Amino acid sequence: MPGHFTFYSDKIENNFAYFSEQETKHAILVLRFQLGDSIEFTTGNGIYYTGKIVEIQKKSFIAEVDSFKEIPQKNFVLAVGILKSSDRMEWLVEKCGELGVKQLIFLKSQNGERSKINLEKLKKTAVAAMKQSHSAWLMDIQEMNFENAIKTNLENKYIAYCNSDIIQILPLKFGVNSIVFIGPEGDFTLGEIDFAKSQGFQVIGLGSQILRTETAAIVCASWSLS
Amino acid sequence: MPGHFTFYSDKIENNFAYFSEQETKHAILVLRFQLGDSIEFTTGNGIYYTGKIVEIQKKSFIAEVDSFKEIPQKNFVLAVGILKSSDRMEWLVEKCGELGVKQLIFLKSQNGERSKINLEKLKKTAVAAMKQSHSAWLMDIQEMNFENAIKTNLENKYIAYCNSDIIQILPLKFGVNSIVFIGPEGDFTLGEIDFAKSQGFQVIGLGSQILRTETAAIVCASWSLS
Repeated sequence: MPGHFTFYSDKIENNFAYFSEQETKHAILVLRFQLGDSIEFTTGNGIYYTGKIVEIQKKSFIAEVDSFKEIPQKNFVLAVGILKSSDRMEWLVEKCGELGVKQLIFLKSQNGERSKINLEKLKKTAVAAMKQSHSAWLMDIQEMNFENAIKTNLENKYIAYCNSDIIQILPLKFGVNSIVFIGPEGDFTLGEIDFAKSQGFQVIGLGSQILRTETAAIVCASWSLS
Repeated sequence: MPGHFTFYSDKIENNFAYFSEQETKHAILVLRFQLGDSIEFTTGNGIYYTGKIVEIQKKSFIAEVDSFKEIPQKNFVLAVGILKSSDRMEWLVEKCGELGVKQLIFLKSQNGERSKINLEKLKKTAVAAMKQSHSAWLMDIQEMNFENAIKTNLENKYIAYCNSDIIQILPLKFGVNSIVFIGPEGDFTLGEIDFAKSQGFQVIGLGSQILRTETAAIVCASWSLS
């Protein structure tokens, strides 16, 4: 029987988990799992299952749930300016997924890129990151206007800003129920910063280095670990 | 005159800075800098210069130094297991360069990949990261055996380990003169961990998530910011 893997199920119903064509390819064709083998899986909603494979078809398979456990998740949200490079966005999704970010919002902001975001492809990357890190939480990915994203219900609200006229603090650690905004390549406008402040956001800096958008985002995700 | 850029000079002598064919292409052909224009540059040894372009040839150009300042650097070293994917190694070099890591060592360890490392190509990536982040320090990149790397003179020595039998601490912040070892995909062996402990290393964990080698490395680089 192959090693330690986590599979992604589309649907778990009446104690049976159903797997897509892609997962079937990975589990049965590539990894050679067989009828009766024990596997671990999740739908990405915070429950981690173990079960046994009870049916294998050409493009799907079914496992019966043996046991499950609920996995807690920290409520940490990142809102990041849209990037020019889709590769860098993919990479950011992978890393945030591994680091247990709950939700990643791609922001449409004033100085930001207008690139089209392939949410379907990014979701696949998030599924792969979840499987890779044996997590039970699938990171949620959204595209949102700055003005809508800023109206968050989260308790601890931060917005990173490079302008050195504003006092920079280095949080290094984000508590639960936090959201952090990271600007696009051209950074946020002063108007956006003022609007964020009026909504209870704290302006922060990320140190003396000048960081790319996706690097700043991953730094904040690293500071959310616990 | 174009915007804010940092160029990499091979040699600064008698107040004149000399630039390679690649930098000439970037500065003169792409960005259209001209004779008499002010530019910023560094050799990556901790000094940040401003000067004026005084000579332009087809494959080189020369600037005269107007002023310079010394930039302090935190002594933070990462020693990371060799990765299977050269793309992921490139990416790691870029991110560590941006985050101001002083030296990045690729470790030959017992469970590690035996991939050949293209140090020349990685150094070019480090130069690009230095230019991108307007830094005056070029990250040093080395390839080293575990046993040699472990004999470091740095004061604060940490080795990350996934084995849950060992108590895991989360530093979240690394002080000056620190070195952190991150294992390869198969992690360090118990023998390697014991050897590191005998050399004064402290075993640490990086949280409850299971991280790829390069993700763990970037987390530690993020925890070195100040």
